Amino acid sequence: MYPESIKNLIESFKYLPGIGEKTAERLAFSILDLDEEQVEFFSESLCDVSKNVHKCSICNTLTDSDLCFVCSNELRNHDLLCVVEDSKSVFLFEKLGMYNGEYHVLDGLISPLDGVNPEDIGLSMLLDRINKNKYKEVIFAFKSSIEGETTSLYIKKVLDGLNIKFTRLASGVPIGADMEYIDSLTLERALSDRKIIE
Amino acid sequence: MYPESIKNLIESFKYLPGIGEKTAERLAFSILDLDEEQVEFFSESLCDVSKNVHKCSICNTLTDSDLCFVCSNELRNHDLLCVVEDSKSVFLFEKLGMYNGEYHVLDGLISPLDGVNPEDIGLSMLLDRINKNKYKEVIFAFKSSIEGETTSLYIKKVLDGLNIKFTRLASGVPIGADMEYIDSLTLERALSDRKIIE
Repeated sequence: MYPESIKNLIESFKYLPGIGEKTAERLAFSILDLDEEQVEFFSESLCDVSKNVHKCSICNTLTDSDLCFVCSNELRNHDLLCVVEDSKSVFLFEKLGMYNGEYHVLDGLISPLDGVNPEDIGLSMLLDRINKNKYKEVIFAFKSSIEGETTSLYIKKVLDGLNIKFTRLASGVPIGADMEYIDSLTLERALSDRKIIE
Repeated sequence: MYPESIKNLIESFKYLPGIGEKTAERLAFSILDLDEEQVEFFSESLCDVSKNVHKCSICNTLTDSDLCFVCSNELRNHDLLCVVEDSKSVFLFEKLGMYNGEYHVLDGLISPLDGVNPEDIGLSMLLDRINKNKYKEVIFAFKSSIEGETTSLYIKKVLDGLNIKFTRLASGVPIGADMEYIDSLTLERALSDRKIIE
């Protein structure tokens, strides 16, 4: 019933996460309202991402050059390593603009229940790197979850004996959140980690 | 900060209606999880839609062939014409599968407040067509709104004197909707158009 081209575009939009039949239809029709150059730009950007984007050979962050923008920057603080669970976290931290150290991106977090074991998340690359460089501090910037805790504890244990300070992000009450909507685990952590007001 | 290719793709997704920075970022990253063929198919579908889809020269419905699938179908009922406000409505009705007549797609509805006058919605094409063909009934299938009413009344008035039955979609309480959530205009219409239970 739909013209073939529109049907194909609807199917394409359905590849995207959280996009079902109705939204895909709406988005496909909206393409008809764009300029020809916009559509060309969109179409080329899709191919470019798929062709050019790969992982940095040092830190595993997504990049389209040889080394990523952090690893190729000599001015970063080489004493600090922030370990994250995916490339998106790197960009989140960079947007803050307050961290000047290096990053390392794992391929996810250890999660035995989902069948994700230490050997599945690219740990050897991280361990090699930490063994070779003289980091003073390794920050685990994972989401607060069992998987996050497990992964930090595992890495810390494997590297036991090295003269490195291991830290994790503070957990607690998010700024601006209503108390009644905060889950009990978070509240428990916020209470036990309470800080002296100075 | 983002690799150039990812940045371009994020910008591209922001062309789409209802998609802001955060969602565009999420969608752009999700492209990296697709197969190369899927991305190619997506990219080609975008260009194809923009290049191949145009309006049917008879009824103004979007199509990628010479005539649309309705106008090129000799078996449709040529006594009935359903006038709609956009091509999407044609596909909505066709999905129902209960209408066998022809369609005509306007370029929107008359809306003096938004500066959309009768000459802006492609009425002459519709009027020519009705004057040439011997339709027995013209159905106005617009959304229930001031603009929908205005447009139907205007067309009916211009064609006054032709031996045609003009009808509009029934308005009323949507099936399954809770009474308390129905606006008063709809309820008013549902009450005044009430039907005898047979």
